[in-house]
Amino acid sequence: MTIVITAFERSPDGGKGLARDTRVRWALEETGQPCEVRLVSFQAMKEPAHLRLHPFGQIPTYEEGDLVLFETGAIILHLAQRHTGLLPGDADARARAVAWMFAALNTVEPPILDLVIARIHEGDKPWAAQRLPLVEARVRQRLVQLSARLGDAPWLDGGFSAGDLMMVSVLLRLRASGILDEFPDLAAYVARGEARPAYRRAFAAQWAINAPQPHAG
Amino acid sequence: MTIVITAFERSPDGGKGLARDTRVRWALEETGQPCEVRLVSFQAMKEPAHLRLHPFGQIPTYEEGDLVLFETGAIILHLAQRHTGLLPGDADARARAVAWMFAALNTVEPPILDLVIARIHEGDKPWAAQRLPLVEARVRQRLVQLSARLGDAPWLDGGFSAGDLMMVSVLLRLRASGILDEFPDLAAYVARGEARPAYRRAFAAQWAINAPQPHAG
Repeated sequence: MTIVITAFERSPDGGKGLARDTRVRWALEETGQPCEVRLVSFQAMKEPAHLRLHPFGQIPTYEEGDLVLFETGAIILHLAQRHTGLLPGDADARARAVAWMFAALNTVEPPILDLVIARIHEGDKPWAAQRLPLVEARVRQRLVQLSARLGDAPWLDGGFSAGDLMMVSVLLRLRASGILDEFPDLAAYVARGEARPAYRRAFAAQWAINAPQPHAG
Repeated sequence: MTIVITAFERSPDGGKGLARDTRVRWALEETGQPCEVRLVSFQAMKEPAHLRLHPFGQIPTYEEGDLVLFETGAIILHLAQRHTGLLPGDADARARAVAWMFAALNTVEPPILDLVIARIHEGDKPWAAQRLPLVEARVRQRLVQLSARLGDAPWLDGGFSAGDLMMVSVLLRLRASGILDEFPDLAAYVARGEARPAYRRAFAAQWAINAPQPHAG
């Protein structure tokens, strides 16, 4: 059955691979599933046709026959449970890999999103400079804990899993702030993720759409 | 195999049921699984013995034989997949219920957590009053969308599921702000969740530990 996902017609990050469709593309590549990509404009994302697929008016969505899914975590978990490549075989190890998916999305990403809000959406507010160190401190606290758990291991729990895919994707959002580079072990962990052939293919596919276009003439 | 979860020795919410162990207790009640609860002090949560169970030093954790899990979402998904009561039988409907779990945790909860930070942790900062309306607007945007999707249905997608358990739990954190009551349909949805016998048992169990104690004499 053909898989169809949605992505930004033009990603606000200009092709850095931070839009969430890259996470789903990466999971599709790791599990060897082809897909079609339907591009959606900001305007169309808020219209009824798209809201039927995604109640919060975002991308990506996932369609496979009659199944319609939203939420990157749910899409990736669905792929990981149906195909090999993203979850270990042992039941306990699978549950732990899923725990790292949730940890990435619900424990590590919220302070990182708050940092994006503080730096970009509230960057021009009178409180921006004073508030930023507080937000950065919350991010660093999580990275200290994550780094302590990762230790010398290449991945969070045994072999590469959907938990690593999600954690690497979340940490990538930090690179522009410089905070990721304060943690060389985590920067190396992210680099290991980026070096995977499946990630490189996923990145290239979104880059082909989103790369800044040279001015004509 | 005995299930052991951890909870705050004394919840900062004084028994309102907002600590995340209540979510796991609720899921255990819905699936008919008994558990033992080990209480952990704030101090002990940051010590190595607890960090081995939960790398971010939080509660709840979940132990079942050799399996150790952290992250409320992962624990509830594990219970939901192993036992009946929290996920529908049809594979597509199961995937959609899981999508609502992720939506609760990754799309609806982050702005609500930001509101808690703005009102409580940053409540004494010079920018608090000026910033609060921005944060509230982000929460309301999500509630408008959630309310539109819920419509007249009692639950988010067919029968009550782990997705509703998580969404109701997330929305409960809004009650103190008054914002939930601006959306009577969502307030009624939350009330339906609270009226479930399994929720009432879970709430009572945490209340027995956390309720404010009358002063002696």
